[in-house]
Formats: sequence, structure tokens, C-alpha cells
Amino acid sequence: MSATGTLHGVGVGPGDPELLTLRAARLIGAADVVAYLAPAGGDSFARAIARAHIRPDAEELRIEVPMAVERHPAQGVYDAAAARIARRLDAGRDVVMLCEGDPFFYGSFMYVHARLAPHHRVQVTPGVSSLGACAAALGRPLTARNDVLTVIPGPLPDDEMRRRIEGAEAVAIMKVGRHFARIRALLGSMGLADRAGYVERASLPVQRAVPLAQAPEQAPYFSMILIYKGNDPWLT
Amino acid sequence: MSATGTLHGVGVGPGDPELLTLRAARLIGAADVVAYLAPAGGDSFARAIARAHIRPDAEELRIEVPMAVERHPAQGVYDAAAARIARRLDAGRDVVMLCEGDPFFYGSFMYVHARLAPHHRVQVTPGVSSLGACAAALGRPLTARNDVLTVIPGPLPDDEMRRRIEGAEAVAIMKVGRHFARIRALLGSMGLADRAGYVERASLPVQRAVPLAQAPEQAPYFSMILIYKGNDPWLT
Repeated sequence: MSATGTLHGVGVGPGDPELLTLRAARLIGAADVVAYLAPAGGDSFARAIARAHIRPDAEELRIEVPMAVERHPAQGVYDAAAARIARRLDAGRDVVMLCEGDPFFYGSFMYVHARLAPHHRVQVTPGVSSLGACAAALGRPLTARNDVLTVIPGPLPDDEMRRRIEGAEAVAIMKVGRHFARIRALLGSMGLADRAGYVERASLPVQRAVPLAQAPEQAPYFSMILIYKGNDPWLT
Repeated sequence: MSATGTLHGVGVGPGDPELLTLRAARLIGAADVVAYLAPAGGDSFARAIARAHIRPDAEELRIEVPMAVERHPAQGVYDAAAARIARRLDAGRDVVMLCEGDPFFYGSFMYVHARLAPHHRVQVTPGVSSLGACAAALGRPLTARNDVLTVIPGPLPDDEMRRRIEGAEAVAIMKVGRHFARIRALLGSMGLADRAGYVERASLPVQRAVPLAQAPEQAPYFSMILIYKGNDPWLT
């Protein structure tokens, strides 16, 4: 019998602490070791969401990530983080890693997962993703019936993004952030500006959900554009 | 001031009752009227997930849906359901409608939403979708970095499905059900059989999550195929 611990990748949802699942709340509340990413010198969003459930006596593994380029930091950060987590697992302790949204949906958890899953027990608790939260914020279905939904990361170059959007019925553009002006111009040139909604900080008190035409000039990292190309399928 | 009630579309997640959000549990626990879909003569899956939170004295609106063809029943069913719900709202009562997964992600809630949103207050509580639950079951990220994810409904014809899969890095095929044999053959002809995972009844005790080659001959309605076309991005 193995005496090593289990790594739990736990989705904490899009931002509203009430969008944690019951299982996430239970796992976090029982956790002896809690790990999370944080920008260098800043607060961890995942920790802020889960804060009320973290035991005062839990050991916290704060993993500092340089936020410079598109949040794809040097792999060395994840090597070191995985080693810190592995030491706890090897000592027989379980580790709960808090993940914004859903751990396996564009999350940084994959970098830790890839390093530890080959040699350790890993369990993932899915969470509410920003997709569902953004659709809820706009008050419109994301997809209907037999629509194809395409999820596009904002950093994709214009020509490729255009091609992907042309081939889809419903589109979500994630991680809009500093690509916002470029993407808005692209959607305008495609005649889709009137069919797009903009959401930032979904589910938080400061959430903004408006038609794209009313979006601000600058978009934060946690922003998304949803496009409904179909013939108003949600209205019939 | 309006005295009419609010319709809450509440996602109850993919099946495990512990994957309800804290907000869903609170709203259901406070609900005076609870609505849900059920197959004619059968049990409601959404109600089964949420059962522990429904008040014994809550009024339950069971909306029977003929399950004949692709779960797209006659619109008359939804006209009648919307009218039943509207009567409660107009009487100033709130109604919680339980929705499998996420209400706005391929859910039948959209049919009720489309009928009631123009004249009533509607709020949606996002839920854990089957997408995240299936990725968790397979133990693999759904998407990484700047992958494009395409979500394809199983009923799509072969030629269109092929074209959509060719243009994507990560693919989820939903509502596989009776289309399973056809889709498996298509993926085989595309050389993707070895890169696909099969999941049925994600997050339930009877969950099955296996490489596509090990999938059973018949797939239930609640089954999904995930395809990873990228160069094993989750391993580096």
C-alpha cells in the first residue's frame, strides 16, 4: 500500500465564492496543505475565492508566477512548484491546489499536473468555468440545439481567428485582455460587432456585461467576448 | 415596483450531488416552487441530483418531455411549461428551475428562458458542465495554452463533423448516444481513434472513462468523446 498523498486539483469557479461546489468546499475545508498561484507581489485570485474555507492551521504553498508575457511563465517556476508539492505528497500528505474556474479548462494547473501525474495520485474536481459564468452574465444561452461552439484564445493572430470564427455558430474568445482593441476591430470588419457581448470579471460584484459596442477601451485579463452568429436561436 | 417573482435557472452540475454550487444549494433550499424536466413516465435527472436540497413543502412543477427524437420535443411542451411557470411568477412567487450541467450550455432551459425572459425577471446560476467533468474523469486537460476548443453535437452529419474536427486542436463531441457507432467509425477513418477518450455518466458512481478503443458498443445519451489532436501539450 502506498503511503503517498493525493494531489487534488480543485476548481473554485469564476470568482463568486458562492460558485464553489460543495465538494470543493469540503476538500478545501479538510486540507492540511493548500497550494495556489499568485502573481509576483500580488494577491492570489484563487485563494481569494476560496478564503472562507481554508483552515487557519493549513500550510499554504504560494506559487509566485511572473505575469509578464501572456501568463506563460518560465517552466522553471512549475518545476520548482511541483517539487515543493511532491515533497508533501511523498511525506503522505494530501495537497489541495486551488484553480480558478475549472482546472482542466485553460488552467495553469495543467503545468503542475503534467509534472506530478506520472508518479503521484491526482484527482480533479471540476469547477464552474468562466464560459458558463459569462453566458449567465449576458443572460443568453451559449449554445443551442446542434450549434457548434468554438472557444478561441485571444492571443490567436487575426487571420487565424477570422478563419475560426467563420467556421463556427457560437464563439467564445477567452483571455481577451491586451488583445481587446485588435479583436474588436476584427469583429467589426467581419460585421459581427452587433452580435457580440463583452463580459469582464464575471460573477464578481464588479462584473460588467454589455454589448460589445458598449465595452470600455481597455479590457482586463479576465474578460471574454461571446458571439452569437446563429439566427437568434435562443429566441424561438 | 413589480410584485412578480424571479425565475432562477439553476445549474445542478453533471450528476454528482456534491458538484452543486453553494449558490445552487442555497437557492434550491429556499425555493417555494421547483421546476424540472422529466422524461415521460421516468425520473428527472436534475431532480435526482438536487433532491437533498428541495424543501418537503415545495411545490414541484414536473415538466414531462417526450424523449422520442433527439430530445427536441414539440414546442408545445415548452409553451405549456412556460405558462405554468408564468402563473407562479405573476403571483409574485419565485421559481427555481433545475438544469442539468450548466443552464446555458446545450440545456433545455433555453426553451423556457426564451419564452419567459422577455416579460419576466430571469437569473441564471451557472453550473459545472459535463465538459469539465469528462476531462476530470479522463484525467487530462481539455485545452492548454492557446489551443482552440471545438464542441460538436453528436447528431452532426459525418462530412460536417469531419470538417469541424479537422479545424480544431481539442474537440469535445457531446450527446453521443445513438450516434456512437457512426462517430467511432468516422474517428477511425480520420486516424484519431488513438487520441480519443470516451466518458459516460461523468461524476456518477457508474461513471466510465476509457480510451475510445475500450468503449462499449452502445453509448448512453449522457456520453462524450474528447479528442486531443495536439502534440501532447499536457505532458510538457
